[in-house]
Amino acid sequence: MPEITEQEYNQQRLQQVNEALGSGMFVYVRKLLQHMPAFDLALILESSPAKSRPVLWQLIDPDFHGEVLEELSEEVRKGILKSMRPEKLAAVAEGMDVDDLAEVLRTLPDSVYKEVLNSMDSQDRSRVETALSYEEDTAGGIMNTDTITLRPDVSVDVVLRYLRLKGELPESTDSFYVVDRNNHFIGAVSLAAIVTAKPEIIVSTLIDDDVEAVLAELTEQDVAQLFERHDWLSAPVIDQKGHLLGRITIDDVIDVIREEAEHSMMSMAGLDDEADTFAPVLKSTKQRSLWLGVNLITALMAVAVTSMFEGIFAQLAILAVLNSLVPSMGGVAGNQTLTLVIRGIALGHVGESNAKALLYKEAAIGFLNGIIWAVLIASVVAIWKQDLMLGGIIAFAMLMNMTAAGLAGVGIPLILKKMNIDPALAGSVIITTVTDVVGIFAFLGTATLLLT
Amino acid sequence: MPEITEQEYNQQRLQQVNEALGSGMFVYVRKLLQHMPAFDLALILESSPAKSRPVLWQLIDPDFHGEVLEELSEEVRKGILKSMRPEKLAAVAEGMDVDDLAEVLRTLPDSVYKEVLNSMDSQDRSRVETALSYEEDTAGGIMNTDTITLRPDVSVDVVLRYLRLKGELPESTDSFYVVDRNNHFIGAVSLAAIVTAKPEIIVSTLIDDDVEAVLAELTEQDVAQLFERHDWLSAPVIDQKGHLLGRITIDDVIDVIREEAEHSMMSMAGLDDEADTFAPVLKSTKQRSLWLGVNLITALMAVAVTSMFEGIFAQLAILAVLNSLVPSMGGVAGNQTLTLVIRGIALGHVGESNAKALLYKEAAIGFLNGIIWAVLIASVVAIWKQDLMLGGIIAFAMLMNMTAAGLAGVGIPLILKKMNIDPALAGSVIITTVTDVVGIFAFLGTATLLLT
Repeated sequence: MPEITEQEYNQQRLQQVNEALGSGMFVYVRKLLQHMPAFDLALILESSPAKSRPVLWQLIDPDFHGEVLEELSEEVRKGILKSMRPEKLAAVAEGMDVDDLAEVLRTLPDSVYKEVLNSMDSQDRSRVETALSYEEDTAGGIMNTDTITLRPDVSVDVVLRYLRLKGELPESTDSFYVVDRNNHFIGAVSLAAIVTAKPEIIVSTLIDDDVEAVLAELTEQDVAQLFERHDWLSAPVIDQKGHLLGRITIDDVIDVIREEAEHSMMSMAGLDDEADTFAPVLKSTKQRSLWLGVNLITALMAVAVTSMFEGIFAQLAILAVLNSLVPSMGGVAGNQTLTLVIRGIALGHVGESNAKALLYKEAAIGFLNGIIWAVLIASVVAIWKQDLMLGGIIAFAMLMNMTAAGLAGVGIPLILKKMNIDPALAGSVIITTVTDVVGIFAFLGTATLLLT
Repeated sequence: MPEITEQEYNQQRLQQVNEALGSGMFVYVRKLLQHMPAFDLALILESSPAKSRPVLWQLIDPDFHGEVLEELSEEVRKGILKSMRPEKLAAVAEGMDVDDLAEVLRTLPDSVYKEVLNSMDSQDRSRVETALSYEEDTAGGIMNTDTITLRPDVSVDVVLRYLRLKGELPESTDSFYVVDRNNHFIGAVSLAAIVTAKPEIIVSTLIDDDVEAVLAELTEQDVAQLFERHDWLSAPVIDQKGHLLGRITIDDVIDVIREEAEHSMMSMAGLDDEADTFAPVLKSTKQRSLWLGVNLITALMAVAVTSMFEGIFAQLAILAVLNSLVPSMGGVAGNQTLTLVIRGIALGHVGESNAKALLYKEAAIGFLNGIIWAVLIASVVAIWKQDLMLGGIIAFAMLMNMTAAGLAGVGIPLILKKMNIDPALAGSVIITTVTDVVGIFAFLGTATLLLT
């Protein structure tokens, strides 16, 4: 075990690969990549500039191509797929899991897609088509079809003999599914139950009550919550009529959990959660500019509000100097509350049932923090500028804006959610607009009333 | 399967529980809570105001207390533990997994801690003490000790007879560990290999080469990466001398992955990732005020820079009106880059080996987006105010600040990381300060030079 962390080790290896690539030592790069697991190969591809990726891809053993594609994030994968010819893709597709293959196929242009499907044997094709018939982000979309099924009336002894005959189990198999003659799902029997039961025991008596089948239409977020609730390692997927379709394994659920958690953070900065860190400059510029444009509009709203008070700056330039203070603090407070609420919604802690309680709580926190900073700022300004009135005005504006920030921080994401708009994406812009406008009005408005 | 989502279902149930609690219908609440899995009970506790939790806790079947404690987030758990007497705690401790119990014990005051430890039988105590001897966020801290060990020279038949005698396996057992007489770890044999092998096969020939033991001192982040790389469901933990200590299961790793992903988002808003959404107002106010204080300092720095140009506002009030525009856009651009880099660091994509390439890329994106918005804003201002020079000044400032934002967005988190400061926590404040100061200087400084 090395003394350095995994992260440092990865970085060192990455440097080695990219330096060798830069000096054109392709044979050496091929050798470096030869014995790496697919996860590491995906890491190297994602950590390299977009323009190096097709070369790296050529240097990776084609036997690993399928596995690496499974590990790659969507945007990076798309780039790789674009550089592959349909025949090569069809060859790679053969070794892939059904769920991952379906994901890959979804991103292909129609003509290539059909060519790949046609090159598959009919059994594999019908499996993939089943997966493709469900939405990408549902249980049906992330399931695999490699289940082992048992009849309810066989004995453990028969099962063991059957398994020995098979010689190998699909990856991550922790349960078998009991089905009737018509492939109706009856229940799950764990591998642990099979190995601890007496040989003469009948399978149907070993069914695990804690495992329920998941409907293929269920969203992947709901699937993830069921997995966490029951500490499942896998779960059977059924259709509306109760037929067994396949199973979902924990590794797919981990992807869902990670994506969900990342999604909030990335969305709050206006980034796509699949955003490729090393994408080409022009592509990234285009992706970011939309969000900057939206923010420009909110910044211009703040400017428009300020311009209503333009006349006062000629008399009292100090107001112009202090004008950014109240909106800035309100923005920070509002975004703190927003972040907390967005996480709460994602974890299922926050919803209509406790929205009101949370609204009161956050308004109260905003008010109390408003008092703290109002007093502090008022003292600083009163002493600095020898102007008690100015201190009072800024204190009042601070108190107003911090309370508004608390209310907006809870109210806006909940309203957005109700309107089916992603609060992580839109929340931050709207809250900043609210705290800008309230802050400027409260400060400059009060100042205009009292000081002129 | 209900037509509503899991989230809606949870919220409905939560409302039911809290309404019943509010009307003092304790018997009914107890009944509602009776058949819920521990995960759901934890969800209800975390989604309820802090003051209701001790009452709810009393109404939960004490047999579930241990499991619920395992599921709770740290801050909520601390609150519950405070309300429990040591004897009760000791009783609950008996049924808990070693890793979770160790986590609970770490948060207890010394006196209670010792009382709970003393009440345990010596075998359990020594297990917990082993877990406690490792740091909380290492492999040793999150491992369990409930492994099943096999000798290398026994046959599959003997293993099966042994397992039938045992009658039950520890939760989430997918592998057995082969050890020698001195408890030295030799390798792992999967349950799948045992059930598919012929009865006369010797265990040592079934060892899975893809499973390596994890050192107890390894950080939990490294453990999580190993699990993802190899798609493990569990992994053996050893000490420096190669003795088997226990095993880590995928459910603990999921917690690590979720916490890590949440940590970045929460830290960027200055929140603790264990922050309790429904904590008492005063506690939350105190927690948030620190961050607001830090931000006040950066806001005051912007004010100080602006005040250097106070004299110009009396002549040109329009500069005061437009002063927030350039810092605002720079702040948004800088935080976009920061978010991308923080995620990149967490995923292991970004480090010293590719820092330079990323720096160039983000500076280029900042420059290009700077041009877009500079031209746009300059046109708006030039038309609105009929002042070409003013438009030019704001365009220049925008271009400068957006480029600075790109550079700071990559450079600052990487420098912070090198200094062992969490970039997610400190990065956003520092970048906002940079874009504020650069933006104001570029805009007001240039304006002072050219317009007066």
